[in-house]
Amino acid sequence: MKASSGASETGSGQKIATARDKLLFTPGPLTTSLSVKQAMLHDAGSWHFEFNELVAGMRDRLLRLAGVSRESGWVTVLLQGSGTFGVEAVFQTCVPPNGRVAVLANGAYGERMVQMLQHAKIAHCVLRAEEDTPLAAAELDGLLKREPEVTHVAVVHCETTTGILNPIEALGAVVKQHGRCFVVDAMSSFGAIPIDFETTGIDFLISSANKCIEGVPGFSFVICRRAVLAACEGYARSLSLDLLGQLKAFEKNGQFRYTPPTHALLAFDQALNEFESEGGVAARGARYRRNHETLIAGMAELGFEPYLDPGVQSPIITAFLSPADPHFAFDQFYRKLSERGFIIYPGKLTRVDTFRIGNIGRLFPEDMAQLAQAIGAVLLEMGCELPLRKRSVLEPVEPVGVGT
Amino acid sequence: MKASSGASETGSGQKIATARDKLLFTPGPLTTSLSVKQAMLHDAGSWHFEFNELVAGMRDRLLRLAGVSRESGWVTVLLQGSGTFGVEAVFQTCVPPNGRVAVLANGAYGERMVQMLQHAKIAHCVLRAEEDTPLAAAELDGLLKREPEVTHVAVVHCETTTGILNPIEALGAVVKQHGRCFVVDAMSSFGAIPIDFETTGIDFLISSANKCIEGVPGFSFVICRRAVLAACEGYARSLSLDLLGQLKAFEKNGQFRYTPPTHALLAFDQALNEFESEGGVAARGARYRRNHETLIAGMAELGFEPYLDPGVQSPIITAFLSPADPHFAFDQFYRKLSERGFIIYPGKLTRVDTFRIGNIGRLFPEDMAQLAQAIGAVLLEMGCELPLRKRSVLEPVEPVGVGT
Repeated sequence: MKASSGASETGSGQKIATARDKLLFTPGPLTTSLSVKQAMLHDAGSWHFEFNELVAGMRDRLLRLAGVSRESGWVTVLLQGSGTFGVEAVFQTCVPPNGRVAVLANGAYGERMVQMLQHAKIAHCVLRAEEDTPLAAAELDGLLKREPEVTHVAVVHCETTTGILNPIEALGAVVKQHGRCFVVDAMSSFGAIPIDFETTGIDFLISSANKCIEGVPGFSFVICRRAVLAACEGYARSLSLDLLGQLKAFEKNGQFRYTPPTHALLAFDQALNEFESEGGVAARGARYRRNHETLIAGMAELGFEPYLDPGVQSPIITAFLSPADPHFAFDQFYRKLSERGFIIYPGKLTRVDTFRIGNIGRLFPEDMAQLAQAIGAVLLEMGCELPLRKRSVLEPVEPVGVGT
Repeated sequence: MKASSGASETGSGQKIATARDKLLFTPGPLTTSLSVKQAMLHDAGSWHFEFNELVAGMRDRLLRLAGVSRESGWVTVLLQGSGTFGVEAVFQTCVPPNGRVAVLANGAYGERMVQMLQHAKIAHCVLRAEEDTPLAAAELDGLLKREPEVTHVAVVHCETTTGILNPIEALGAVVKQHGRCFVVDAMSSFGAIPIDFETTGIDFLISSANKCIEGVPGFSFVICRRAVLAACEGYARSLSLDLLGQLKAFEKNGQFRYTPPTHALLAFDQALNEFESEGGVAARGARYRRNHETLIAGMAELGFEPYLDPGVQSPIITAFLSPADPHFAFDQFYRKLSERGFIIYPGKLTRVDTFRIGNIGRLFPEDMAQLAQAIGAVLLEMGCELPLRKRSVLEPVEPVGVGT
């Protein structure tokens, strides 16, 4: 066993976490360190000053991690719920009654933004690209010229449907030329891919506790320009998702307005410690890139092809084309890998049969190598011929069921 | 140390949780058992079938705890976020565009419902009672006669502002006579105070993971009549808070739509085990009543008076009048108790200066007795005269700051 094992990571945990948990090669919830989980062995009072000091510290640490500061006008707002709650809170709180949002979409998370706006009856338009193609700044420029009523532009940085990276710097430059508000869903990229908030022209960036910071799930966080959020007084269409109300509470008495996930917050504080010890964004990103390279190499030996072109592929998560071999069936493949202690992720593409493997969380290159080995063994067990024969992306297939 | 101590509760935890956490005498987050927290030492995949089976089991166990069943038309919907998110999700999902909600309010949580409806621009009216007075069925009857357009009636069962219990059986009978939909916020009562769902005419009941079931915070749950929820198609004004969307996902593939707080869910499963082992609602309620009685007796010796009349007081949380002694200052009182390992809760009343002590969570009568002893010692340290002289509720005072 090794560093990512729950049981052997620290001596003190051995009596409790004797069985190694299955490793999660997913976009989250992720495998976390034992010490992050051990931070949850305490009960904290959410009205208590010691806890509130911890929360205030985390809000500032996230700003430092983002390379911005309160002095230069930035704040962090933590919000209970998953990352989706954080993204929706930005829309529900910050789009004025006569506002209009342009969503840039090339995957399921962009489409989810559209669903949010539909539910809230917020005016919007959508600029779509194919799932294997980054959104283009020139097309956004055209859209904003045609649509003078657009007040906000929203995009997903790393679209975990495929793992594709959208060029937020180029897109942000166009948004700012047109003087619009820029909302970036950086759920699965923040903390591993450097983001220059100022030059990118970000107004609101959303991420969550259990992505690249490697905390446990339970809340999201929004890093935003304080003045832009403060100008949204009276817009909120939901009390729970009122981001400005949440900010005011933090600034008034250091507290969440409603019961926070105290244990997840204690874990996040420890996750930030470990993030900083590892060496911050550069080191975390480097480990994920090594994970990704190890995975790609191991999978290539078996004959697997990634869905995306390497030039647009993030090191966060990789979609692989499902083998054409008639003996391959995803459900069986998934279960057999699970029996060996490896949890992978189904595909989410609408037109191509893929499955996904995440590189983030408390995973190391040797975990990726072991996974590739296990995949090879499972394929042989299933009667597949190795290496797999090449298949065309365009070959017609039945897509597998869509996951979350 | 004793059963409620984090350090000594089980041998296996001693190396990790060496320092006893301060005990939380609050309405939540609460003190939980070490074994509940230890259940969080694992990472679970939210798409994974083993985890989904656990979630399905919890949803059914909550129905059994409520004394209802899927066969008789009931379902449980779990929702990420705090209890407030669950209450708001019911309004955001279930009130039709032309619906109108009557809120019964005698405290901060009733008023919070009003805020939710204001944010969502849902038509509503409010029937208020004084904070020390239960809502009256006869007044509701009058309101519903005057307001034929009311579609939903919403009330807080145990209003933790004061600890007062509202008579949901009598109120529910009136709601059903008038054929309206009945929404009960049973956040701090469910699991400790028996509730007959059928005879009370409940359509939606909301509670949360870290109240009387003694899990950790991170999600709420709604127990409701499936047919009533299913009839709300198309009403949801928020994607994240779309309770019907959430139910459909559970029924389709057993999954949360968006990343669930996996660790809080693992803890809840263990909390349900411990709830059942203790003897269910009757036994849990009996322990809280013993806690309450021990507290009241200890505080009476010191000269403290509860704010409420005993006839309307729940065993969940107790509001005490702040001493009239000029040496008493809540902030100092709170900090000195904290230094001794006891976390109490501020008052939340608008016109009377109170503080609150919760009886729920992993607390036992001897914890309450120790708290009362510590309160006596702290009062003497502050220079107060014991026993405290009696004061009138009507004596004018400056209220302390309002907590969460």
